[in-house]
Amino acid sequence: MLTVALPKGSLLKESIQLLKSVGLDFTGFLESGNRQLQLIDKSGRARGLKVRAKDVPVYVEYGQAQLGIVGYDVLREKKPKVAHLADLGFGGCRLSVAVAADSGYQSAIDLQHHCRVASTSVNSTREYFQSLDLAVEIVHLSGSVELGPITGMSEAIVDLVSTGTTLKQNNLTELEVLYHSTARLIAHPLSYRVNDSGLSEVIEQLRSTSLETGLS
Amino acid sequence: MLTVALPKGSLLKESIQLLKSVGLDFTGFLESGNRQLQLIDKSGRARGLKVRAKDVPVYVEYGQAQLGIVGYDVLREKKPKVAHLADLGFGGCRLSVAVAADSGYQSAIDLQHHCRVASTSVNSTREYFQSLDLAVEIVHLSGSVELGPITGMSEAIVDLVSTGTTLKQNNLTELEVLYHSTARLIAHPLSYRVNDSGLSEVIEQLRSTSLETGLS
Repeated sequence: MLTVALPKGSLLKESIQLLKSVGLDFTGFLESGNRQLQLIDKSGRARGLKVRAKDVPVYVEYGQAQLGIVGYDVLREKKPKVAHLADLGFGGCRLSVAVAADSGYQSAIDLQHHCRVASTSVNSTREYFQSLDLAVEIVHLSGSVELGPITGMSEAIVDLVSTGTTLKQNNLTELEVLYHSTARLIAHPLSYRVNDSGLSEVIEQLRSTSLETGLS
Repeated sequence: MLTVALPKGSLLKESIQLLKSVGLDFTGFLESGNRQLQLIDKSGRARGLKVRAKDVPVYVEYGQAQLGIVGYDVLREKKPKVAHLADLGFGGCRLSVAVAADSGYQSAIDLQHHCRVASTSVNSTREYFQSLDLAVEIVHLSGSVELGPITGMSEAIVDLVSTGTTLKQNNLTELEVLYHSTARLIAHPLSYRVNDSGLSEVIEQLRSTSLETGLS
């Protein structure tokens, strides 16, 4: 049976809508009070796993899920060995450098050597500042990165920004965009090549549906 | 001003109760709908930061918080450079090896070399299996580790267990306890030595209160 890994959080609802449009119904995951981590689609064709966004590529890489939906930010940060199949278009956001609005910094290159930059995306942050030849100290946080400049722990942050409301509420201003991110369809490379569980048919349906609906 | 880092999640309520008993009132964090990440205590003596449990020792290590409350499991896994001051007694749980109840395994040493073990606590897991001289492949997950054996991704998991309900619901059985964990009081080493912001007085109050209430 085809298994699809779905990300908890901001991409879940649209991921489930997209799968429903190709006949795979995992809307049970959206029912309030539903705490199930796995669910068989109503047609019995596929199983859905609801996991943390970061874990989606892990299940796909190990082949426990043949397909997965996850933000490009996770793929860029973790570089899992999965096949990247399609940009699904929804869940748009960007990974950006931000600083306190009153800091006086105009661009990332204005930051001092050895200053602290807090982020949950340490690999992307490291690569970016290396490309600028700026030796910053990266502080790995698990969340609420906006507290970095507020508490004085870090001069800057590198964080995902979607509407920008969180930055504004915390008097932070965006300096640079490292990259833009959207939801992506990924597959286990071997399953994709051998067309396990009728995978290619589902992939084609998902690709054409996301194009038709203007999602990508 | 004294700054205290408090952990979101299961330890938050008791941490705030303990601080209230020594006259530092951060109960505002518990009000429904309160999304503040920092709060000044009603007496104006201290500031509270509400952060992810994993981030508590980061704020304390960098000195942005002089004090913090966090589970021993986080300290054991991350080994931050902070002063361990007191076992506060609440938030008891254990880090355990578990397998599918029908797997036939009786103890961790029965697991095969190169089998997969899923965990969010990869350092503790690695140390434990190295001590058994068992070369397992550790799969790093961010959450819902119980899906490992269910999906067939891993033979075993290493996960925090408090009541054991999650294991039972997922037909998993506990084989070994790696260690027991409770909430701990930690401090920034330098602030502690120089008694910054009347730190030692608050620490003594917290220690004696947690002893009086039988928490430790």
